Formats: sequence, structure tokens, C-alpha cells
Amino acid sequence: MKRAVCLLSGGLDSTTSLGIAQEQGFEVYALSFRYGQRHTIELDKAADFARARGVKQHVILDIDLRRFGGSALTDDIAIPKTGDEATIGHDIPVTYVPARNTIFLSFAMGWAEVLGARDVFVGVNAQDYSGYPDCRPAFLAAFENLAQVATKVGVTEAGQALKIHAPLIAMSKADIVLRGTALGIDFGETSSCYDPGEQGKPCLQCDACVLRAKGFRQAGVSDPLLTKFGLSS
Amino acid sequence: MKRAVCLLSGGLDSTTSLGIAQEQGFEVYALSFRYGQRHTIELDKAADFARARGVKQHVILDIDLRRFGGSALTDDIAIPKTGDEATIGHDIPVTYVPARNTIFLSFAMGWAEVLGARDVFVGVNAQDYSGYPDCRPAFLAAFENLAQVATKVGVTEAGQALKIHAPLIAMSKADIVLRGTALGIDFGETSSCYDPGEQGKPCLQCDACVLRAKGFRQAGVSDPLLTKFGLSS
Repeated sequence: MKRAVCLLSGGLDSTTSLGIAQEQGFEVYALSFRYGQRHTIELDKAADFARARGVKQHVILDIDLRRFGGSALTDDIAIPKTGDEATIGHDIPVTYVPARNTIFLSFAMGWAEVLGARDVFVGVNAQDYSGYPDCRPAFLAAFENLAQVATKVGVTEAGQALKIHAPLIAMSKADIVLRGTALGIDFGETSSCYDPGEQGKPCLQCDACVLRAKGFRQAGVSDPLLTKFGLSS
Repeated sequence: MKRAVCLLSGGLDSTTSLGIAQEQGFEVYALSFRYGQRHTIELDKAADFARARGVKQHVILDIDLRRFGGSALTDDIAIPKTGDEATIGHDIPVTYVPARNTIFLSFAMGWAEVLGARDVFVGVNAQDYSGYPDCRPAFLAAFENLAQVATKVGVTEAGQALKIHAPLIAMSKADIVLRGTALGIDFGETSSCYDPGEQGKPCLQCDACVLRAKGFRQAGVSDPLLTKFGLSS
């Protein structure tokens, strides 16, 4: 069984991406990060999900990006809560964490090399997204290019070292909701909100909540997370 | 004053690379990692060096690469101690740590973005070295290419986002010894050994010690670290 390292944040996208890796027959090694984000509910969700899906191993790494700050997720900067779709995706928002996906993929690449895996899955998408630079196809292509020369296997088998799978890259949030639902993912046990309340109650006003709501609405599916908290979108 | 992030391990190469950054007029932000290496003497040396050179800030980040293992530096794998120059640089040795420099540069890139810095210095060299894939010019070029699209400034000023300086890349160890000496670096207060004894006493048999000894010998300079421990090369 071929192994794959799957980045897992515990949200809608990464759980669906991991589900697709499993559907493609990969033995999954899930990787999450305690990077100094405002809350760790998403990590509890990631751990529960990894267990429920029977992944081979789930590692949560500690990397303290608060030492650098520079983001509303890792510094004392307020999280924008406009509740408004129209404001999303024009400028790079303050929730962007400098170099986050490069750092995450670098660790994934290292673990893949140790495991003898040639495949890494990441749940980024560049349609209904916040405009983060490290979610774009050009970024993923450049990282895959780097991976061909960065590792031992890159020297011995140039060009075959690592494939970065981003199966959601061209999908809308609605597509992702439908795909994940078809894969049997319980989205009621995921967390997307940047600033959730008790027990992971979503704020409904941050960009992550707004994009998630748009996805469920356009998919014509009700979000089980809202039902769980007695909320309406 | 322009800012630069300088990777600093506390050895011969990274101290010289940092000295060159200062000589070029950069205000230096030094970055070291407690990554699960066998000893932390090099981090003590890095901290002392950063203080002595008056860098603006020195951050030591904790990232536990032992969670993945796969290297003699981060796993229960014996460090080769041949004491023999002729064995070095043919194959990639077991001291290679998967993705280490990619991970280090990713964090440096993130910090640089927060600082508004466009320059990162790294002390890798591809002459008298152990054959690590992530010390080669092709790797550095691919990382710099990635950096152009990975960050916010990469979106707003494509092609100008970050320069990766590797001033030692084409130098021999002897060149580095002479350059560092000219910069006033006290190599008696650096640590290169993969497996040092008490107070950082070098083993003289690992690849790092052997390459260091070759450098001092070819430069016609005696290594103050050996003098300090009453050793001869």
C-alpha cells in the first residue's frame, strides 16, 4: 500500500483532501501543527477525525509561530468579522500567516522522505478562498519543483521525488461540501472558524465561517455544525 | 539599515556567513533551531556568538524533528566516525536530516516577511561538505524561486520577494577559515562536531570534525578550539 502524508487542520478542506487520499488507496500519515493559533479546537477535531478514518499515524507537531507574529492568527491583531462575502479575496487579509504553508509542506516533505512516501496531500483551494499567496497553483508548482532537488531521493531519482496533491485546488466550496459528503465525512465534527467560542461554536462572521456558509448554501446542504449548535446560517 | 535573517547553527560556516552579512551592512536577525539534535552545545555557542556580534535579535525555535527521525542526528543511528577525509562526499551520509534546510529556510522566510526583510543568509557550502542534497546550488535556486510566489510580498512584487544569500557556497573550508578569521570570528567559540564530549570537546573522528581539520590545515591556521582542549589535529 502506497503511503501518503496528508496535512490535516481539522477543517472542511483538509478532511476532504484526506478522504480523497484514502479513496485513491493511500495509507495515510496525517500531520497537524500546534503553531500558535488562537484556539486548538481544530486540533481536537483533527485528532478525532484521524482516529475515525483509521489513518496509520497522526502527528501533531509544535512549532511556535507566535515567536514571529505578523498575523491575526498568531499575534495580537483583531480577526476581521465582516460577515460579508463581498469583502473576501480582494486583498490578502491579516489572517494570512507568513510562510505557513511552506513550513507545513517542508515538514510533510521531511516526514515523507523518512517514510519512503512520494505523495503529500494538502487541502488548499484557490476558488472560494481568502487570497492567501501560499494557496495558489503557482506556489504549489514551485514547491513541487523545490522538492525534486531538496531531498536524498531528489538526488537519486530527480523529477520523481515527491508529488504535491492538491485535489481541491480548482473546486468551489460547494464542490468540496458535496465531495466530502459523498466520502462520508461528518462535517459536524470539523472546525473552520478563526475564533470559535465554547465547544467550537462558530462565530459566523469571520472569513472562514462566511466561506463555509457560502459552500453549504450553494451546495444545497445544511451544515451539521450549525445544527449541532442550534444556529442558522 | 536593511535587515537580514541569518541562519546560525554555531559552527564555522554559519558564524562566517553571519559575519559576512554584517560586513555587507545588514542589521542581523539570527535564527537557530533546537530540532532534536544530539547535543545543544552548538546552540549555546550560537547564543554567545549572536550576543558578541551584537545582532539585533536572536531566536532559538523548538521544532522536534525526532518525531520523524530518519537521521543519525535525530534518531538512534550511530554517527560514523571514520576520521577519514577520503570517505566524505561520495554518498549522502546518515547524518543527513530529511528536509532540514528546507524547513530552516521556510521559517527564515516567514520571519523575514514579518520583519520586512528581503534577505536571508545561510552558511551552506558545496565544496568541502558531506554531500547533503539541501546544500547544493540547485536547491538554493529552487528555494529562492519558491520564495517569489510563497509570500505576500511575492504577490505584490513578484521576483523581488527574497534573496537567499549563500556566500560560502563555492568556498573551500580553507577559504572559510581565512574569511572568518579576517572577520574577527573566534573559532575557538564555535562548535562543529556531531557528537561532542564534555564542554563541547570535539571527537575529531566524525565528518564535521574531519572537514574542519582539513580546512584549518589547508589554510595554514591552527584551530583555536583544539588548542582550548589541548588537542592536536
